Amino acid sequence: MDTTPATADTTVDGHTAHGYISDKARYLARMKRIEGQARGIHRMVDEEQYCIDILTQISALTSALRGVALGLLDDHMKHCLLDATHLGPEAAEAKIQEASDAIARFVRS
Amino acid sequence: MDTTPATADTTVDGHTAHGYISDKARYLARMKRIEGQARGIHRMVDEEQYCIDILTQISALTSALRGVALGLLDDHMKHCLLDATHLGPEAAEAKIQEASDAIARFVRS
Amino acid sequence: MDTTPATADTTVDGHTAHGYISDKARYLARMKRIEGQARGIHRMVDEEQYCIDILTQISALTSALRGVALGLLDDHMKHCLLDATHLGPEAAEAKIQEASDAIARFVRS
Amino acid sequence: MDTTPATADTTVDGHTAHGYISDKARYLARMKRIEGQARGIHRMVDEEQYCIDILTQISALTSALRGVALGLLDDHMKHCLLDATHLGPEAAEAKIQEASDAIARFVRS
Repeated sequence: MDTTPATADTTVDGHTAHGYISDKARYLARMKRIEGQARGIHRMVDEEQYCIDILTQISALTSALRGVALGLLDDHMKHCLLDATHLGPEAAEAKIQEASDAIARFVRS
Repeated sequence: MDTTPATADTTVDGHTAHGYISDKARYLARMKRIEGQARGIHRMVDEEQYCIDILTQISALTSALRGVALGLLDDHMKHCLLDATHLGPEAAEAKIQEASDAIARFVRS
Repeated sequence: MDTTPATADTTVDGHTAHGYISDKARYLARMKRIEGQARGIHRMVDEEQYCIDILTQISALTSALRGVALGLLDDHMKHCLLDATHLGPEAAEAKIQEASDAIARFVRS
Repeated sequence: MDTTPATADTTVDGHTAHGYISDKARYLARMKRIEGQARGIHRMVDEEQYCIDILTQISALTSALRGVALGLLDDHMKHCLLDATHLGPEAAEAKIQEASDAIARFVRS
């Protein structure tokens, strides 16, 4: 199931490489769809479509984004965070602080 | 750039036409930027960039979307809703119900 | 259906009286329950119960609060806002701006 | 006021005891205040105060709750999650899954 390539632990620009994303193709498809939704909303505004209909599409896009964010967060916690625990308590603590901060930013966004 | 036609009050497919958006050019620019943000996140996933950085970008995008939604809602309430009050209580009530439902969908998205 | 008492339009401290809340008893019961949930969470913290269980209770409380807020907002829009339209465009506009601001505060809370 | 017992690491009903909450007294004070806010909103509804004012109070309460939730989550991740890593990969994974699920519930609440 995990097709993380053999390069997964090499260091790339300051981070260990992130072969962490389970099912990358699915995330790419979801982001492609989200991009299309954003483009569709742009067109609706351009065509001065009905406000409520635009709001409905923005709600759908927000919801789709939230799904991607929660999925990535879940992957991150399972992979990066778990891996970090092998690096010793300081590294683990730093990773946990980083994840906690990212969660707070997302919750408040 | 706002080319809202003089026909703004004629009926177009069941809605009064929506010359309601204050500063349409600004909304178009914001949606263009949001589309670019979505494309950027797609690329970050494709390049397997660091999860936390992707999450940070998703938070920024969510926040930008929320701003557009609140702006459109404000415009809608000021223009469509206010206009609807000229159409009599039933029409006003229907418009208000519609707006209230859209708000609930957005809040829960 | 609307059992608003005859006093509903008298002025009380600067506002028209708010006989607007449909099914007031139900809101009171919901707020009573929410108060109990808050007290329960206080006790869980005091007893140092498991964090995740406390978070689950906070999620339930947040969700209940959101339901009350959306219900009140719906009532407000149907009653106060609709009533305001009888007071002329300036009053209606002021009420709509007020509601729009309250929605933005809630969405950002 | 922090009466965290000396037994903080003993096992209590299936969980390791939760001496994890940094500054418990502060959380208790915050929850006490939140309880008071809920009681205040109940009274506002009972007195049929102005909807918008009630909504503003609900927004403040929601915001306060979110702060408590993010604080507890941060504490949880720093203490419970970090501790779990000493218990071996399976335990750590289970803890991480549990935290990730709680975050998703909270974000969606």
